[in-house]
Amino acid sequence: MTSKKGLLERLAAGEVIIGDGSFVFLLERRGYVSAAAWTPESCVLHPEAVRQLHREYLRAGADVMQTATFYSSDWQLQHVATTRNDEKMKSLTTADINSAAVDIARGVAEEGDALVAGSVSPVSSIAFKKGKEHVVGEFTKQMATFREKKVDFLLGEFFINIEEAEWAIQAMAEIGVPVACTMRIPSRGDAAGHSPQECAVRMAKAGASVVGVNCMYDPDICLETIALMKEGLKEAGLDQTYLMVQPLGFHTQDPGLIEDRRGYNALPEMPYALEPRAITRIDAHRFARAAYDLGVRYIGGCCGFEPHHIRSLAIELSKERGRLPPAAFNMTPWDCLKVSNTSSYKEKTSQEYWFNLNPASGRQVKPFATLCKKD
Amino acid sequence: MTSKKGLLERLAAGEVIIGDGSFVFLLERRGYVSAAAWTPESCVLHPEAVRQLHREYLRAGADVMQTATFYSSDWQLQHVATTRNDEKMKSLTTADINSAAVDIARGVAEEGDALVAGSVSPVSSIAFKKGKEHVVGEFTKQMATFREKKVDFLLGEFFINIEEAEWAIQAMAEIGVPVACTMRIPSRGDAAGHSPQECAVRMAKAGASVVGVNCMYDPDICLETIALMKEGLKEAGLDQTYLMVQPLGFHTQDPGLIEDRRGYNALPEMPYALEPRAITRIDAHRFARAAYDLGVRYIGGCCGFEPHHIRSLAIELSKERGRLPPAAFNMTPWDCLKVSNTSSYKEKTSQEYWFNLNPASGRQVKPFATLCKKD
Amino acid sequence: MTSKKGLLERLAAGEVIIGDGSFVFLLERRGYVSAAAWTPESCVLHPEAVRQLHREYLRAGADVMQTATFYSSDWQLQHVATTRNDEKMKSLTTADINSAAVDIARGVAEEGDALVAGSVSPVSSIAFKKGKEHVVGEFTKQMATFREKKVDFLLGEFFINIEEAEWAIQAMAEIGVPVACTMRIPSRGDAAGHSPQECAVRMAKAGASVVGVNCMYDPDICLETIALMKEGLKEAGLDQTYLMVQPLGFHTQDPGLIEDRRGYNALPEMPYALEPRAITRIDAHRFARAAYDLGVRYIGGCCGFEPHHIRSLAIELSKERGRLPPAAFNMTPWDCLKVSNTSSYKEKTSQEYWFNLNPASGRQVKPFATLCKKD
Amino acid sequence: MTSKKGLLERLAAGEVIIGDGSFVFLLERRGYVSAAAWTPESCVLHPEAVRQLHREYLRAGADVMQTATFYSSDWQLQHVATTRNDEKMKSLTTADINSAAVDIARGVAEEGDALVAGSVSPVSSIAFKKGKEHVVGEFTKQMATFREKKVDFLLGEFFINIEEAEWAIQAMAEIGVPVACTMRIPSRGDAAGHSPQECAVRMAKAGASVVGVNCMYDPDICLETIALMKEGLKEAGLDQTYLMVQPLGFHTQDPGLIEDRRGYNALPEMPYALEPRAITRIDAHRFARAAYDLGVRYIGGCCGFEPHHIRSLAIELSKERGRLPPAAFNMTPWDCLKVSNTSSYKEKTSQEYWFNLNPASGRQVKPFATLCKKD
Repeated sequence: MTSKKGLLERLAAGEVIIGDGSFVFLLERRGYVSAAAWTPESCVLHPEAVRQLHREYLRAGADVMQTATFYSSDWQLQHVATTRNDEKMKSLTTADINSAAVDIARGVAEEGDALVAGSVSPVSSIAFKKGKEHVVGEFTKQMATFREKKVDFLLGEFFINIEEAEWAIQAMAEIGVPVACTMRIPSRGDAAGHSPQECAVRMAKAGASVVGVNCMYDPDICLETIALMKEGLKEAGLDQTYLMVQPLGFHTQDPGLIEDRRGYNALPEMPYALEPRAITRIDAHRFARAAYDLGVRYIGGCCGFEPHHIRSLAIELSKERGRLPPAAFNMTPWDCLKVSNTSSYKEKTSQEYWFNLNPASGRQVKPFATLCKKD
Repeated sequence: MTSKKGLLERLAAGEVIIGDGSFVFLLERRGYVSAAAWTPESCVLHPEAVRQLHREYLRAGADVMQTATFYSSDWQLQHVATTRNDEKMKSLTTADINSAAVDIARGVAEEGDALVAGSVSPVSSIAFKKGKEHVVGEFTKQMATFREKKVDFLLGEFFINIEEAEWAIQAMAEIGVPVACTMRIPSRGDAAGHSPQECAVRMAKAGASVVGVNCMYDPDICLETIALMKEGLKEAGLDQTYLMVQPLGFHTQDPGLIEDRRGYNALPEMPYALEPRAITRIDAHRFARAAYDLGVRYIGGCCGFEPHHIRSLAIELSKERGRLPPAAFNMTPWDCLKVSNTSSYKEKTSQEYWFNLNPASGRQVKPFATLCKKD
Repeated sequence: MTSKKGLLERLAAGEVIIGDGSFVFLLERRGYVSAAAWTPESCVLHPEAVRQLHREYLRAGADVMQTATFYSSDWQLQHVATTRNDEKMKSLTTADINSAAVDIARGVAEEGDALVAGSVSPVSSIAFKKGKEHVVGEFTKQMATFREKKVDFLLGEFFINIEEAEWAIQAMAEIGVPVACTMRIPSRGDAAGHSPQECAVRMAKAGASVVGVNCMYDPDICLETIALMKEGLKEAGLDQTYLMVQPLGFHTQDPGLIEDRRGYNALPEMPYALEPRAITRIDAHRFARAAYDLGVRYIGGCCGFEPHHIRSLAIELSKERGRLPPAAFNMTPWDCLKVSNTSSYKEKTSQEYWFNLNPASGRQVKPFATLCKKD
Repeated sequence: MTSKKGLLERLAAGEVIIGDGSFVFLLERRGYVSAAAWTPESCVLHPEAVRQLHREYLRAGADVMQTATFYSSDWQLQHVATTRNDEKMKSLTTADINSAAVDIARGVAEEGDALVAGSVSPVSSIAFKKGKEHVVGEFTKQMATFREKKVDFLLGEFFINIEEAEWAIQAMAEIGVPVACTMRIPSRGDAAGHSPQECAVRMAKAGASVVGVNCMYDPDICLETIALMKEGLKEAGLDQTYLMVQPLGFHTQDPGLIEDRRGYNALPEMPYALEPRAITRIDAHRFARAAYDLGVRYIGGCCGFEPHHIRSLAIELSKERGRLPPAAFNMTPWDCLKVSNTSSYKEKTSQEYWFNLNPASGRQVKPFATLCKKD
């Protein structure tokens, strides 16, 4: 563990923590993860790519480097390696990967003032049905490397059942570092219908100092759930529990999507045509402000959040945080455009212009195919 | 110069060349370039970031590494450095940057079978007005490093006046390596109204072995211009000239945009809210097929083209090229999804599903701001 | 009853029946119905407005005039009249309205070769819970006027429970005219989970000669349900039952909307901002062709279908029907544009142009409010 | 002429005049006009359809009934009639049509307190080139019926050259009724580059008491031009001239469209796929407020404005006007939804909900064509 100020010290001092953004989605685009597999073997096979992404988040203002250990499961790794017929990948174990992942995260964290968070994922649905003892055992296995390599705190993510979140928190609490935990639930509550209010309270009581929501829905929908969590904590007299949110970087305001409960997995565009749903950095500014005003103090992103989105969180909250991120080059995004003397940029050098803009998709007219016929 | 097969040998052998994608736009998002400035000082200040992006294109199937030398102008560098009050940047010259840029490109090219292309940009509009002699002098300066460091070929880009393109080609031809040249013009022709047919013929006659279009408009509009260029070359008996195209990775099918002539610079979303305009990888598949069918043999991207888009070009044309790119993991994108047993992916494992999909923007409903009021 | 060829005779002769389109939605826009109330008092208070709409459907090619009796319930009429404090409306009974509605429909039907269909709606959910006997009694009351005024056939619409549909069909069958019946269900089946296959078979067995789907979802989703109904009828050896479809004229391809089951009632845009969801007449052409190819022989529209959409159904199937509708002016829509010598229309005079077009929303940029600030 | 208060008396008394909306576009959808022809023969052939549309605007709150005489040209009528091979239409003259049009407008105006405006259109571009004398002669012919039938005021529309507007105004002024005149120009000015400021001043000096903009662009863009006209009038000391605006009911915020200058004629969706561009009634509320705040006192719509849009103008300005329109049923649109006890409407009963909504297009996924394959 470093001599840096820890997560809880920072939060207690009133700091706003900026989280990092998307890993598997971006590494897929960059050519190091395959879609639907979503496995993190690149930590061992291409560490420079993972390191570079961490570094971009650090430059964007992130205070946390989450280990790239999502879906680090021996079964899934072997399954994917077999499909690809990739001998190198077959030889890898989750232990190899997790160890490399922590080293990479730690290395970049040391280039700045960031903390390393050991990222803990749910077990498989088959494993979950085997009950508490089995599940806690699985979590304990996941945490071996984090304990040994001394991460700064642990972050459980992506839980859909409050029981599993509780079990994970109990296992994490054993390590002796602060515990944060987020669920992937909408305002309707978890898979069994437990409300966000109840989920928040139960996570806090199980030992999480920071609770909240991640993935599955866009910033707006995630904040609705957080608002309910906040309400629950208040009523239970647990106001000291911190709130965190790491939503999708994609718009998911489709009527019925919350009822569907599969979140972005229900989108026809998932995973190859999500581009037009991407939030803009302006959306990220709005989100940061809304989250802050709601009292959230750990604000980051999940799938679809790119470094420039994280940078916008840090810029929007730069007054509250007392600093701009390195990648802001000492300028607001609006002032930045003044460097050009093209007339096109003239009316764009104010925040008002950007906050009033409804971006268009530019999609129209002529399919590529029609062109060929000309020839 | 390497002992690899050169650009013209490859083209003469009937190979399809895959170009690389966006640099300044992606480095801006990754935190190494500032919008509106668009300068390439990161070649010296953060070479690992530039190298990583080159590497991603290589893994995506790109056969060419273009040097990251766009907007490498001493005046612009000083102007931007002053705005940022950045002493380190102030000390940099274009020579420093170009030299570093070629070294980075060469290093990654050697990791595979790629060629290094020295990227040559237009001079400033003020310089252009000083006439041929002055402009050719400027180009000769730009090329000093490329000559010394022995790039595999030269690529002039982004010309809006056919005269300037001709002067650039003449200067490039002096170096003794193959010359390619693209203009940023729509079907209406160049800034003075010279038609694409005429522009293509004049570029070919000036000494370019490969001619075409880059930037400013989306794949569809760029291919329209290319179709006219092809027509012009045919009529002039210059069929042996190769065609290339490197369009925007953004949809720009807005009525009137071609008349406006500023291309994507006329978009209200430029540069901070272009996300919903981003092409999907499916669009990239369609584009690759349409370009190939039109007879284009050098196909890449410009601003907005990300590694996964370039990968889709290489996958779409994998039969013609006899290989899949490294980042395809030996699978088509459609087969790739079979690795998951989630029902959500079941209907998505065919190319037909994706080619029939009209992606939605998911934008709707509740502004983030309304949430805050709850509190 | 007229001496015209009846519904079943037409269908048996292989004719394609074109239905009519939206009434309450269009009368709301035209100023004769209020949103959320959706009551048909205008049949008595403003008969000329209802008559004109019927006439437009007749000119568009509709073979059926459905009586404008939807939501003709004494309770609802009084409730709405009280809200509006409208004495005239308070004095109206459903008998007055239904009688006027049949007279109007009959009058316009006689202007052409159309049939009059008595439109039967579900009872209230409270009434439904009172069981079969009560519900059949309610239907019998609804049908008094239709029996007396001798409609050409009866059309039950908008059922969400198969039991209720069966009861309605049994009551309708008593009148001695052909019975058609449509449910407002997606491919998931009715409110209790009875599959479309089962629903179709049960409606046919209860006495409906024509069965199908109406309202709630867009043409595409409705046809999916119809495809399942067709399958069910085939397996049950009931191939002689005719299929009909009258979908929404709004796009409802939102992920999760089918799971939500409220159909278009779940849309945030309902009822005041549905414009951008409106289908184009080109969509109507596609729908008509797809429905016909699926074997559907009664094709019309529900909420959102305007006269020009119905006209497009009739034009698309003009070869099969042996005639163009009066409002086509003896031309295809594509030829129609040749009348203009403006260059803008030149490339638009083919069906291909229109079928390849992805229409844009044109929504962007500057809120109206910003203008005021200038002043 | 009626004994009603005239246009100028109303304006001088501080009243806000609500204009009417689209005629040719709506009559095309309703089956009485053919696209690209846009001729008004239905005034004679189907007067009930024209009368009904006038009536809907009256119920929506319109204070003006514009005669449906747009494109009433003998040449165009014969050209269209020949194309259609329509003998009845061939026998019609513009005099027949204009006379019928005034009678219809007057009849409906008498049902309320509305004024009849004789609508005067530009001459053909060929006629325009023949010079002032010829053009004034053409206008004088157009006005014969209006003079004879005593319209309440004259309204010149759709001018793109300030000279022609001046000539039209001079001819209109001869009749002895108030003259209003609107041009179809964006902020860039008329076809010859005369600024909106100059155009407004010249129209006023030529004798128009009310000047402004109509058609071609959406409400936002039209108001920008009006703002410049206002500026020009102020500087010229002509503040007493009233402003009017009747924009498109379609969104046209496409980058480059103003440069293109063809306005909505440049849209690929024109005229068969404009649906997704339609403004919502909420947009109409915003427009009415912005126009009023800018000082405009005659506010209506052009192509694409339907009765419910006009109704929203009248509702938005109901406080200023001291009354709700008949079709509002004594309720605001938001209160109106309270009549339903469906939960779907609960959160929608406030203006805030609707003003914050970004409507979606619902367009996605599955082309209709794919369905057929199943069979």
